[in-house]
Amino acid sequence: MWDVESFLSRRRRGFRFEEERRVVEEIIAAVREGGDEAVRSYTKTFDRMELGDLRMPEAWFEAAEAKVTDEFRAVIREAIGNIRRFHEHQRRSSWFMSEEDGRFLGQVVRPIRRVGVYVPGGRAAYPSSVLMNVIPAQVAGVKEVAVVTPTPEGQWNPGVLVALRELGVREVYRIGGAQAVAALAFGTETIRAVDKIVGPGNLYVALAKSAVFGRVGIDMMAGPSEILIVADEAADPEWTAADLLSQAEHDPMASAVLVTPSKTLAQGVMKAVERRLAKLPRRDIARQSMEQQGGILLVDSIEEAVAVANLVAPEHLELMVADPHRWLGMIESAGAVFLGPWSPEPVGDYFAGPNHVLPTGGSARFASPLSVDDFVTRMSVIQYSEAALRTQAARIALFARAEGLEAHAQAVEARMERGGRGRDGAAR
Amino acid sequence: MWDVESFLSRRRRGFRFEEERRVVEEIIAAVREGGDEAVRSYTKTFDRMELGDLRMPEAWFEAAEAKVTDEFRAVIREAIGNIRRFHEHQRRSSWFMSEEDGRFLGQVVRPIRRVGVYVPGGRAAYPSSVLMNVIPAQVAGVKEVAVVTPTPEGQWNPGVLVALRELGVREVYRIGGAQAVAALAFGTETIRAVDKIVGPGNLYVALAKSAVFGRVGIDMMAGPSEILIVADEAADPEWTAADLLSQAEHDPMASAVLVTPSKTLAQGVMKAVERRLAKLPRRDIARQSMEQQGGILLVDSIEEAVAVANLVAPEHLELMVADPHRWLGMIESAGAVFLGPWSPEPVGDYFAGPNHVLPTGGSARFASPLSVDDFVTRMSVIQYSEAALRTQAARIALFARAEGLEAHAQAVEARMERGGRGRDGAAR
Repeated sequence: MWDVESFLSRRRRGFRFEEERRVVEEIIAAVREGGDEAVRSYTKTFDRMELGDLRMPEAWFEAAEAKVTDEFRAVIREAIGNIRRFHEHQRRSSWFMSEEDGRFLGQVVRPIRRVGVYVPGGRAAYPSSVLMNVIPAQVAGVKEVAVVTPTPEGQWNPGVLVALRELGVREVYRIGGAQAVAALAFGTETIRAVDKIVGPGNLYVALAKSAVFGRVGIDMMAGPSEILIVADEAADPEWTAADLLSQAEHDPMASAVLVTPSKTLAQGVMKAVERRLAKLPRRDIARQSMEQQGGILLVDSIEEAVAVANLVAPEHLELMVADPHRWLGMIESAGAVFLGPWSPEPVGDYFAGPNHVLPTGGSARFASPLSVDDFVTRMSVIQYSEAALRTQAARIALFARAEGLEAHAQAVEARMERGGRGRDGAAR
Repeated sequence: MWDVESFLSRRRRGFRFEEERRVVEEIIAAVREGGDEAVRSYTKTFDRMELGDLRMPEAWFEAAEAKVTDEFRAVIREAIGNIRRFHEHQRRSSWFMSEEDGRFLGQVVRPIRRVGVYVPGGRAAYPSSVLMNVIPAQVAGVKEVAVVTPTPEGQWNPGVLVALRELGVREVYRIGGAQAVAALAFGTETIRAVDKIVGPGNLYVALAKSAVFGRVGIDMMAGPSEILIVADEAADPEWTAADLLSQAEHDPMASAVLVTPSKTLAQGVMKAVERRLAKLPRRDIARQSMEQQGGILLVDSIEEAVAVANLVAPEHLELMVADPHRWLGMIESAGAVFLGPWSPEPVGDYFAGPNHVLPTGGSARFASPLSVDDFVTRMSVIQYSEAALRTQAARIALFARAEGLEAHAQAVEARMERGGRGRDGAAR
C-alpha cells in the first residue's frame, strides 16, 4: 500500500523508439513509392504470406461464419444494437443563426468521406475492436469504411471476420503493420487513400499512424489499459479483486489500482487477488501488472479518493461507494465511469454500448472516448447581406488596420466603393 | 492559369526540422529541470529581457488602455459579443439514457480544468488571436485560463493587452517560445502546469507543442493561410482580386486561388490583382504568395469548381456564385465557407463570430475549426442494475471468453456467485 504522495510521484518514463521510427519511415517511403508490390513484399517478410489479391477472400468470410456458434452470433448482434443505440445519441445536427440585419452564420456537420480502420490480427485480434471503431463511423454517416487486418501465415480470427460481416463492411484488406497504414494514407493501385485512420495496433502501427498524421487524420494513441477503483468499506473484496484483475490480465504494463479509506477492504482485496490470480490462464501477465503497476492506496475519505481519481484521470473509473451518483458530480476527468457494484468494467468493454476506445495515461484530462464526433467535420458558414456589410464595414476595416493587414481592410472597402454590383443588391 | 491535373499534382513537401527539434527538446528539458530560472535565462537570450516577475505587470495593462482609441475598444467589444454568441451555440449538454431493465448509460461533458493560451508577440501579435482562443475556452466553462505572450525587448502590443483585459483574463505571463510552452506543460515555481495548450506560434512554438503532446493536449498545427474562391462570370473582378490579396498578404507561403469557368473573370482578376498589389504595404509578401502559391484555375463548370474545392479542402472557401446555398450542400470539406458577394473572407477573421482558427493544408478533410468542443471532455457513464447484470451476465462472459479474456468473464461471474451483496440488491 502507498501513501498519496509516493503514489502520485510515480510517472511513466517516455521512450523515443528511434530505431523503430527509422524502420517505419523506411516502410512508409517504400509503400508510397512501390504501391501494392511494396505492400506484398513487406507482408511476405513480416506476415510470412505470399499475397496475390490484397482483399480478404470471400471464402474466408464464409469459413468464419461456419466456425462461430449461433450463440456468439446472437451476442455480437445484441452488442452491435447496444453500441449503435448509444452512439446514435452522439449525432449532431448542423445549425444556423440568422440575425435581423441579414447576417447568416452557422456550422455544417459532414461525415468524413473515407475512413480506414486498423484491426489487429494474430493473438490480439478482438471482434470488439471492429465494433468499437466501425460503428461510430457508420453512425456518423461515413460512406466508405476500408478495413485492414493482418492474417499472419494465413491465420485469421473468425470473430473478427464475422463482426465485419455483421456490420456490412465489404472493403477488407488482409494486410497489417506500418505497410498497411502507409497504404491507407497514400493509396496504392488497389487501395484508395483514406482521409482518416483509426484503430489500435502494435508499436509499429502506432508510429506509422503518427508519421502519416497531417496527411490524414488519426485517432489518439492508446497506452496500456488502466482501472482505478474507488471503494468504501461496504464494497465486496472478491468483486473488487476480480475487477482489478480484469484489467491486469490485459498487459504487464496495465495498471489496476484500488483507492479506499477502508483498511479492512484493502486487506480483503489483497487476499482475494492472490487467490484469484493463481487460477487465471493469463496469471503471469496479471501478476506482473499487479506487482509493478498495480496497488492499493489508503486514503482518509472518499473525498480524498475522488481527488486522487481526478489527478490520475484514469481510463476506467469504478465508483463502488454508497450513492455513486452523488460522487459522479465531483469527477472531473476519466474515460469511462462505472457506477455501483453491478457495473464491473467488462460490461463496458463490448456490450453496454459506450465506446471502449478511451483516453489513457492521464489524457482524460483533455481527451475523450472515441465517438461519432471523431468521424465528422464541422465547417463554419458565414453570409453577410449587403446591409450587414455596409453597417459593419468601417469597424471591420478598423480592426484589420489595427492588426496591420491593409489588404484585409481593402477587401471590405472594395465593396463599398460602387453601389450594389453584388447579386443580392438589386442594381446589377 | 492551370489545368485541373497540374493544379492537383502540386503538393507541399514535408520538412523535418531536425536541428530545430533538437534545440526545442533541449529547452524543454532545461525548463523541466530548472523551472523559473531556466525560463528567465531563455527569455534573456531570445527576448533580450531581464525578467524579475514572470507576470505581465499591471502597469503595462494600464498603459495599453491609454494607448488604444475608444473606437477600437468599441469594435473589440462588439467582436467579443459576436464571437461569444456564435460559440454559445456550440455548447453541449451531458445526456443519459435509462433502459427499462435498469441500465443507465450516458455521456457527461466537463470543461477542461486549466488551459494555457499562447499569444504571439512582436510583429505577428494579433488581438484577434486572443479573442479566438480565449472565448471558446470561457464559453466551455474552463475555470483557469493562463496566457503566455512574449514581450521581446519589453515591447508589447496594446491591442493584445486590451483584448486580454476585456475578456477578464488575469493570469498573463510575459514569456514566449519553447520555454513558455514547456513552462505551461510541466509547470514551474510560478506557473502551475495546464491540461491543454492552444494558440498559434512560430516554428519553435509549434515544435514545442508537438513535443509536449501527450503530457498535455494541444490544438492542431496551423499551416500557411489559404483561400479558394469559386466564382462565376457575374462575380466582380475587383472584389475577387481584393479577397485573394487579403490572404496573400499574410505570408509568402499563403495560398490564394480562384477557380472559375469564366475566362473573362479570370482575365479581369489578373489585371485587378496587378493593379491592387502595387499599392499594398505588404506587396512583397503578397506578390511572392500570388506568384508561387496562388493562381487561377479554369474549369468547365461550377460543378467542377466545387469538386476541386472538395479535393483541396481549403481553409477558407468563398462561393461567389448564383444561389450559393445550393452549392453549399455539395461542399464536403472546408474550414469556413463564405457565401455570396457580401461576405469577403476578412469578415470572418475577427468580427462575424465563427472562429478563425481553421484547418489548413487539406486537413479540413478530417479536422474542424477550433470550437467549444476543444475545451471540454466527455466521459462515458455506465451503471447496471442487479437485474440488468443478471440478465446479461452469461452473454458478457461468453464474449469475454471469445476474446480470450478469462478474468473479464470472472469479474461478471463473481457477482452471480452469491446473491445480492451489492448495494442496490436488498439483501446485504
